[in-house]
Amino acid sequence: METVGFIGLGIMGLPMCRNLLRAGYAVVVHDVAPAAVAAAVAAGAVAAGSSSAVAARCDTVIAMLPNSPHVRAALLGPDGVAAGARPGALVIDMSSIDPTVSREVGAALAGAGLRFLDAPVSGGEPKAVDGTLAIMVGGAALDFAAALPLLRRLGGTIVHCGDVGAGNVAKLANQIIVGLNLAAVAEALALVARAGVDPATVLAAIRGGAAGSAILEAKASQMLAGDMRPGFRVDLHHKDLANALAAGRALGAPLPLTAQVLELFQAARAAGLGDADHSAIARVYAQLAGAGAGAGTED
Amino acid sequence: METVGFIGLGIMGLPMCRNLLRAGYAVVVHDVAPAAVAAAVAAGAVAAGSSSAVAARCDTVIAMLPNSPHVRAALLGPDGVAAGARPGALVIDMSSIDPTVSREVGAALAGAGLRFLDAPVSGGEPKAVDGTLAIMVGGAALDFAAALPLLRRLGGTIVHCGDVGAGNVAKLANQIIVGLNLAAVAEALALVARAGVDPATVLAAIRGGAAGSAILEAKASQMLAGDMRPGFRVDLHHKDLANALAAGRALGAPLPLTAQVLELFQAARAAGLGDADHSAIARVYAQLAGAGAGAGTED
Amino acid sequence: METVGFIGLGIMGLPMCRNLLRAGYAVVVHDVAPAAVAAAVAAGAVAAGSSSAVAARCDTVIAMLPNSPHVRAALLGPDGVAAGARPGALVIDMSSIDPTVSREVGAALAGAGLRFLDAPVSGGEPKAVDGTLAIMVGGAALDFAAALPLLRRLGGTIVHCGDVGAGNVAKLANQIIVGLNLAAVAEALALVARAGVDPATVLAAIRGGAAGSAILEAKASQMLAGDMRPGFRVDLHHKDLANALAAGRALGAPLPLTAQVLELFQAARAAGLGDADHSAIARVYAQLAGAGAGAGTED
Amino acid sequence: METVGFIGLGIMGLPMCRNLLRAGYAVVVHDVAPAAVAAAVAAGAVAAGSSSAVAARCDTVIAMLPNSPHVRAALLGPDGVAAGARPGALVIDMSSIDPTVSREVGAALAGAGLRFLDAPVSGGEPKAVDGTLAIMVGGAALDFAAALPLLRRLGGTIVHCGDVGAGNVAKLANQIIVGLNLAAVAEALALVARAGVDPATVLAAIRGGAAGSAILEAKASQMLAGDMRPGFRVDLHHKDLANALAAGRALGAPLPLTAQVLELFQAARAAGLGDADHSAIARVYAQLAGAGAGAGTED
Repeated sequence: METVGFIGLGIMGLPMCRNLLRAGYAVVVHDVAPAAVAAAVAAGAVAAGSSSAVAARCDTVIAMLPNSPHVRAALLGPDGVAAGARPGALVIDMSSIDPTVSREVGAALAGAGLRFLDAPVSGGEPKAVDGTLAIMVGGAALDFAAALPLLRRLGGTIVHCGDVGAGNVAKLANQIIVGLNLAAVAEALALVARAGVDPATVLAAIRGGAAGSAILEAKASQMLAGDMRPGFRVDLHHKDLANALAAGRALGAPLPLTAQVLELFQAARAAGLGDADHSAIARVYAQLAGAGAGAGTED
Repeated sequence: METVGFIGLGIMGLPMCRNLLRAGYAVVVHDVAPAAVAAAVAAGAVAAGSSSAVAARCDTVIAMLPNSPHVRAALLGPDGVAAGARPGALVIDMSSIDPTVSREVGAALAGAGLRFLDAPVSGGEPKAVDGTLAIMVGGAALDFAAALPLLRRLGGTIVHCGDVGAGNVAKLANQIIVGLNLAAVAEALALVARAGVDPATVLAAIRGGAAGSAILEAKASQMLAGDMRPGFRVDLHHKDLANALAAGRALGAPLPLTAQVLELFQAARAAGLGDADHSAIARVYAQLAGAGAGAGTED
Repeated sequence: METVGFIGLGIMGLPMCRNLLRAGYAVVVHDVAPAAVAAAVAAGAVAAGSSSAVAARCDTVIAMLPNSPHVRAALLGPDGVAAGARPGALVIDMSSIDPTVSREVGAALAGAGLRFLDAPVSGGEPKAVDGTLAIMVGGAALDFAAALPLLRRLGGTIVHCGDVGAGNVAKLANQIIVGLNLAAVAEALALVARAGVDPATVLAAIRGGAAGSAILEAKASQMLAGDMRPGFRVDLHHKDLANALAAGRALGAPLPLTAQVLELFQAARAAGLGDADHSAIARVYAQLAGAGAGAGTED
Repeated sequence: METVGFIGLGIMGLPMCRNLLRAGYAVVVHDVAPAAVAAAVAAGAVAAGSSSAVAARCDTVIAMLPNSPHVRAALLGPDGVAAGARPGALVIDMSSIDPTVSREVGAALAGAGLRFLDAPVSGGEPKAVDGTLAIMVGGAALDFAAALPLLRRLGGTIVHCGDVGAGNVAKLANQIIVGLNLAAVAEALALVARAGVDPATVLAAIRGGAAGSAILEAKASQMLAGDMRPGFRVDLHHKDLANALAAGRALGAPLPLTAQVLELFQAARAAGLGDADHSAIARVYAQLAGAGAGAGTED
């Protein structure tokens, strides 16, 4: 069966790599963390010493990295994929990054005779483990078709959103909406709590109507309980919104509310909640409403 | 059958009044607009010359008025309900107003030996006509129980949210979330459009996940089509958010994102869109992104 | 010498009243607080039992009240100035209120055959005591001319800004700029402090250039010292900005940054700083940056 | 006399370079634009083929570049200063960049045995020509002392603000305050204009008091006249505020109002005003208040 390269074996990358191995692919891996490489090798992968060495050994290379600079370095840097890739190889970047960087990377790889898809995911570690991620893909239709059998081992919903960069545009649109819907629930509950009304009763009254949302269903009770376990971490959502604003600046799209929500996540981080679930934004409201740093929950 | 008073026969009040008549109630009505009174009389209601005259003729009085000052005047003013009410009468204010005014009015009526519920509704004219409004009620449990048979003629979902004012607190929580969820979709689509990606494809990719919401389902395609027909008008949502901020100020709850969305609705009104559907907030984003006043849609 | 009416003997009104007495005017006063009336009487004023009773005894009536509703009640209410005023009397409202209310009150008084100026002041208690307030006046040129000798006993700089309401428009423009300039200094210093750089050195480097402002000169060192003594209180600035936003809504002017600063002042009030100097907005930044409720200063 | 290197000969760099030549320094220059190099050579400079070639020929190297990535490349890149520098050379970066990048660059140069100052300037092209820039310097006291004679040929006010990075921290604090003070004036004038009051009269009434600022003096009349000539360009202020937000994110300082002003500058750029004076932010307010894209001024 086909050999696939996999660069970046973090919380998301490692289980994705395992799913490919389980499906029968031969996988050549690289990561800066030796322990992560060891875990992948223990699952059947073969280690290579650099991103370019990975690329030298396969026709399809997946990257799953923290942010734009890591992607730029791993794909275009001195020991990067482009430096070692086989002619016409397909590079699939599944990291969540600024789409203007995806386009820049895609153009550079095209200039080197390589094909490129940006294919960020949604769903977090549990869906990475289950192989049921939502995958939003940008790139040429032929490349999307070529990648589809592989992506089906990793995700449940796989949508071709447009040209290179469209995957990350869709991901950022998702993160903007999720961030604002979260803040909406936190802000409304802050008013309810301050008015001395029972938040759970209000939620029961409104959840079935126009205020209903996946976030309200998933996170409102977690906010009320003061449950901080992730879920999706504040630091990651903060990173995504910073990418959205960077893209907005590059593309000329003012994003005034996203800019405010980012600052609220910034305040959550400053309060030591970077590793907490992003619903911890409710704590910032509690702080603004005078509950003080020691308050257990926002009500 | 019981006689009920009804004050305020606007777009919402008139069909609600008709539903009570249809259910067999005798209804005594008042409105400042003679045409509205004539329409109610044509449906079987009896006209009275003032709010106090309405109150003099029944044990239950409903008010359905535009905003806090109208409620204060109609219930507590010189010719208001309190001036003419029977001892122990039940006053049900179904207007959407600042809950701190509901509490003030409720306290004044209690001082005059009257009972009070605030019971704002959600669902707009179609559900007022159908008698399927969502009704959020604040007040004593006994008063809620007493009002329930009547409210069932007007609404589908009827929730007792807490003491007097809790109905409007719930309504404002709803409007905050709806307003922010709307802005979230508009802001995300502005980025998508500016990136040259097809918004419909992105919506298809994300609607089933964490970004999903009732507003995304109901309004995103309306935004994309540039369809301005209400629905729920910008002016009314603007009014509700102003009430939320007034309540936030009175109660000590900072509402930074609501404050921003209000200014976006303000810009929509300044652009002549006060009567448009609230999804017209997407036009403000188009304007900010340089599309100019003449642009048909946000993409 | 002429008899002048004076309604509202608070922190500002009482010293202003004393300045008129000192200048030789006979002054008839009213206030809801008996102690304030007693203090004015001790200084030589004559007490009247209501605003209408004040108006009945003089051709010029000054009001100096907390906010729009008090002005409406004192001038147009049942026992208000309009109910007792002599034909053609001149009413000067020196309160800081929503200019759309000034216009409404001015129109109502004109309908009753009375003349009206709105003449809010700036400078606080010290300048009220010294008689050196800045006074911004709206109304007809003839009425301004008629009021000028009297206003010269109260203020140093007296500017005729336009028709009725223009005085409060100017005052709100002033308060918007002051509020944002304050927040600008607090926000910049928060970044400097977080970067571990000495704020005093930075201030010394930039104060002489484009960043220079009266607020930077007056308040930056107070922020750095954590000195909370007013000065101008958070609650009053909050009130003025709420009036600015109400006026913006009535007039169709979006004020997005004012809306944000108001929420920061709201957070300051929620933290128990309503009576502190408005430079206490720096504490909100300290709180957002994770310093916690107990931090003494923002650095 | 001493030989000095100068990298970056743009609108600011070229006149600064000429001032050094005029003062008798020998200057070795580099720029990516041949025309800029030619202009410097015409004034007496000597051209070198790369940043590293510049560094090889002198003990002090100045950089004056657009933004963080250019500085990183010119100082640390393959043909950069570090690659060619003499042992113990002093590198002075006078670009306005993110101070966290200054610190990163300073640490890298220190690791290569080089000394580093960040020394951004304020005052624009006119003061670059006159040699009267304000210079904010970060770095070791000994290095500051060594650079002072050179800096005195370029600037009027030269302040040592702290360790490496402190120069850009001071510069960003300056730009935050200037940006917010500008928006404050624009927002206040938008309310005044919408109220139908003469803005010039209001400005006359308030400029001498707490609302007074260097920006109000320099820019309010330019806003009223609709005069777009720079001055300081929207694009550059936008860049600086983006750096401030990046620094805020890196350092954990929430900057909510800066985030909003950036989005207003973003809207100005989207309206085609990137090259206009930053006072063009008043146009965004005119647009938000419904004046439409064709309006000449904000009133």
